[in-house]
Amino acid sequence: MDRIFRVNMGSLKVSEEKVTGDYLGLGGRGLTSMVVSKEVPATCHPIGQHNKLVITPGLLTGTTAANSGRLSIGAKSPLTGGIKESNVGGTAATKLARLGIAAIIIEGMPEKGKLFGLAVSKDGVKVFPADDLKGLGNYELTEKLQSKYDKKVGIISIGPAGEMKMAMASIAVTSTNGTPSRHAGRGGMGAVMGSKGLKAIVIDDTGAEKVAIKNPDLFKEASQKFVKALREHPVTSQGLPTYGTNVLAAIINEAGGYPTRNFSSGRFEGTDKISGETMHDIISKRGGKTTHSGCTTCIIQCSNEYVDEKGKYITSALEYETIWANGANCGIDDLDAIARMDRLCDDYGFDTIEMGCTIGVAMEAGVKEFGDAEGAIQLIHEAGKGTPLGRIIGNGAGFTGKAFGVVRVPVVKNQGMPAYEPRAIQGIGVTYATSTMGADHTAGYATATNIMKVGGYVDPLKPDGQMALSQNLQITTAAVDSTGLCLFIAFPALDIPECFEGVIGMLNGCYGLNLTPDDVAALGKKILKIERDFNERAGFSNVDDRLPEFFKEEKLPPHNITFLVPDVDLDKVYKF
Amino acid sequence: MDRIFRVNMGSLKVSEEKVTGDYLGLGGRGLTSMVVSKEVPATCHPIGQHNKLVITPGLLTGTTAANSGRLSIGAKSPLTGGIKESNVGGTAATKLARLGIAAIIIEGMPEKGKLFGLAVSKDGVKVFPADDLKGLGNYELTEKLQSKYDKKVGIISIGPAGEMKMAMASIAVTSTNGTPSRHAGRGGMGAVMGSKGLKAIVIDDTGAEKVAIKNPDLFKEASQKFVKALREHPVTSQGLPTYGTNVLAAIINEAGGYPTRNFSSGRFEGTDKISGETMHDIISKRGGKTTHSGCTTCIIQCSNEYVDEKGKYITSALEYETIWANGANCGIDDLDAIARMDRLCDDYGFDTIEMGCTIGVAMEAGVKEFGDAEGAIQLIHEAGKGTPLGRIIGNGAGFTGKAFGVVRVPVVKNQGMPAYEPRAIQGIGVTYATSTMGADHTAGYATATNIMKVGGYVDPLKPDGQMALSQNLQITTAAVDSTGLCLFIAFPALDIPECFEGVIGMLNGCYGLNLTPDDVAALGKKILKIERDFNERAGFSNVDDRLPEFFKEEKLPPHNITFLVPDVDLDKVYKF
Repeated sequence: MDRIFRVNMGSLKVSEEKVTGDYLGLGGRGLTSMVVSKEVPATCHPIGQHNKLVITPGLLTGTTAANSGRLSIGAKSPLTGGIKESNVGGTAATKLARLGIAAIIIEGMPEKGKLFGLAVSKDGVKVFPADDLKGLGNYELTEKLQSKYDKKVGIISIGPAGEMKMAMASIAVTSTNGTPSRHAGRGGMGAVMGSKGLKAIVIDDTGAEKVAIKNPDLFKEASQKFVKALREHPVTSQGLPTYGTNVLAAIINEAGGYPTRNFSSGRFEGTDKISGETMHDIISKRGGKTTHSGCTTCIIQCSNEYVDEKGKYITSALEYETIWANGANCGIDDLDAIARMDRLCDDYGFDTIEMGCTIGVAMEAGVKEFGDAEGAIQLIHEAGKGTPLGRIIGNGAGFTGKAFGVVRVPVVKNQGMPAYEPRAIQGIGVTYATSTMGADHTAGYATATNIMKVGGYVDPLKPDGQMALSQNLQITTAAVDSTGLCLFIAFPALDIPECFEGVIGMLNGCYGLNLTPDDVAALGKKILKIERDFNERAGFSNVDDRLPEFFKEEKLPPHNITFLVPDVDLDKVYKF
Repeated sequence: MDRIFRVNMGSLKVSEEKVTGDYLGLGGRGLTSMVVSKEVPATCHPIGQHNKLVITPGLLTGTTAANSGRLSIGAKSPLTGGIKESNVGGTAATKLARLGIAAIIIEGMPEKGKLFGLAVSKDGVKVFPADDLKGLGNYELTEKLQSKYDKKVGIISIGPAGEMKMAMASIAVTSTNGTPSRHAGRGGMGAVMGSKGLKAIVIDDTGAEKVAIKNPDLFKEASQKFVKALREHPVTSQGLPTYGTNVLAAIINEAGGYPTRNFSSGRFEGTDKISGETMHDIISKRGGKTTHSGCTTCIIQCSNEYVDEKGKYITSALEYETIWANGANCGIDDLDAIARMDRLCDDYGFDTIEMGCTIGVAMEAGVKEFGDAEGAIQLIHEAGKGTPLGRIIGNGAGFTGKAFGVVRVPVVKNQGMPAYEPRAIQGIGVTYATSTMGADHTAGYATATNIMKVGGYVDPLKPDGQMALSQNLQITTAAVDSTGLCLFIAFPALDIPECFEGVIGMLNGCYGLNLTPDDVAALGKKILKIERDFNERAGFSNVDDRLPEFFKEEKLPPHNITFLVPDVDLDKVYKF
């Protein structure tokens, strides 16, 4: 993995270079953030000619390491205006890595209105005209490309949302089942891809050689240690495989941290109808898949295939965040409707978290009533078709709040909040407030320690200890996001020492290094500093590291509590 | 003028206090900015409970000083997110001053959906319910209030745009002819008023005593000196009274600085059809008023009353900025259509500059064609009625650019640019970039020196000297904006020493002071520092003191020039 391909969408020329200099030793988020930091002017227009879209597998991607199939996509974000790394599973990352590709960097701008695709294979990267694919949803697009190329190709693509450069446009990646159901959702990476006139990247790794391993014995031993930990920890061995990520619904609702009706309550009366347990029963009864691995090399298998009453595939995977955002947050308790919303978002190419947040804000504005599932579905169609109302919705929760004069808008750095109430889970509030990415649960998943008591326990309702918890998690996460490993390894990693030893052992075995845990922490810190520096150059200050004022002023039921972590603590997060 | 009234829109209580402490000696912009700086948390939501709307006459308002009828309205801006002072002529300021009122401060938030009015008289300030006025345009509203109170009352009001809390909502003030045709347009002050549930302020100064003058002889002498200068300078004695502000159209077009079709050219082929000269002929022929004084105490009389072919009143005053924004900037050369657009904006309560900038961006996006006057009118109706498309338009040029994925968007700090191309008039570019107000020509009118050679000459096409020019003008303007004097006094003030001596003499005569020119400059600097500090606390940095990237990259015809003032110069503006 030492090849970097640059594609200039203006000249349509492709060039290849070796990984050198500052880019050496980096992968995944570390590499995307370094490239964006070095090559993209921080103040540039995010859908203008100076932004770049950077696509990278992780450091362990392409090897036999379990759960190593994550792909990182980076750029200046049209949603936040800051740096963004959005990562995604599926099949593409492994194929890129097997082709020896460390990064594809998309630059420049095409002639207005022109669309192109990239064909990636052992022969390199080729540009092809794609005007015939204009306006296609990800599902039809994927089928068309699979029939033209091969069923087994990996596809990275955008739907109409990305073509319209909407700030919540996602980038889809094909799952192991061939559907475009894995999404780099957050931060509008699809809009950047759309601004480059790039509709799809087709990756065929036929004939690729195995990724070279410097020290196979060390790698194998470490890999086994790592797998053992994943298979031992109850979250990765039982909770996630059985119920999927939606195992969390009942837990977070019980904790009073399940944001309901646009963050006006922490408990939803309809949770039983949309919980992981209920979903498991529905899928089982209908003959869908309650579990499967959507990402190459996955052994956790948190994914599922949700089917309709006749057993026909609707979507995969129906996940906790999506169900919450388009469910409880909109007062909707109809799992079939939510599954259709997920499918529509995947097809049009929308981030399901941002979409649910946005619909919640629109409902607060009175555009639709809370609980109106058909109304919510209609809003997604409006967005996907780019009607005037859809242009509002498609640009996210912050934008929709401004359009309709709503004050209670749950965003940080203009990115909509995920499924954890920062008043009831104060640690995640610190992450939302301070992450370089905007409100992002995956940037430092304090919920694990606040609620699930993984990696110790910090009382979720008190401000004490939350800063240090979030800071440590943010640092570690930045490093994990560089490996290509699924973030769910954090559960065993926080509780079982051998898990993290396994990760370091795999890195050392693969690259012939002698990394220690300190080196990994140093990598995480380095990445955060790079990202923070970019954001500062883009105009961010500690003013942007705050939750919206209503979190400090409105008491959240059922705990009747506000966000209590003081600003001085928030300002300490990057003091490391 | 030492009375401050506070109105809490939550409790509906009014309290009165004396001007004391930091507020002593301030008026107009100086007082609004000081109150906002002291009392409004810089990071608060601009349409939330913590923002305040501050309404103040200037220091000389209410006296017999010529052209002293400006009203300052301040708040945190929903458009820029920074501090805002938007000022306006008409009749209200003088009436407030004669009632001894230095400021009305509107605080808190009412019960959702409730509307109120304020009745201001020598008996103080009283709140009245105004749900019956909901949704009214400014014209119907004004007539209704005039028939209920008195034809001679001054009225400050919002139209539907303000009620909908749109970021380009203006605050209307009645002109001397009783129409709601003077607007505090910039920065969405109407949205703040709307968020407070305040529909109108009715001011009856019956029985008010004359404003006390400490040294009547000095005041009289200075006042005469001031008037003499206004009557001597060709701009204030000939250009403005004869052709109105639109005298500029031909001049700026000739200079290649007349932004055309969303800032894609500096010269409009249809300028002859919409110039001040043409307008003068049309109004004369139809029996309208080519000149009159719209503001109390005005002796320049730049205003006009534009009438239709049958001589029926359409709007007043049809001004240069409005004609440019909704004309050349949209490729429209139909003065009757532009007059109707002005009337609609005044009625719905929109800033005509922001509206024209926004329509230009919408046309760039293909929502309407450039030159489509009926299409432009339809967009204003959409905005005024709050349709989904209208919710986009009503929130301004920056917002509309984001909605439709347009990169060429002429805004600074999210405020749309006025009628001077910063590539062809580089001095005004420095003002746009660095003003605390966002892109605002009135904040430091470098066009005077760049194009009209008033106050010397600085070559408009070269970067040299523009920083110092803009800096000096911004400082002086901040002081002038505190006096309540019309900014057009700047023309004689820059060329005739007695003009500025007259201003200082009037202040000294009125308040029994011994101010020198240095004191006036110090006041201007103090105000700018207060505003800059607020903006920094709100999260602004020098990154926000820049023009959009296309001004540095796209060459503007006919001079084929980019914006050349280096960033280091922009960063010097506040180094005083």
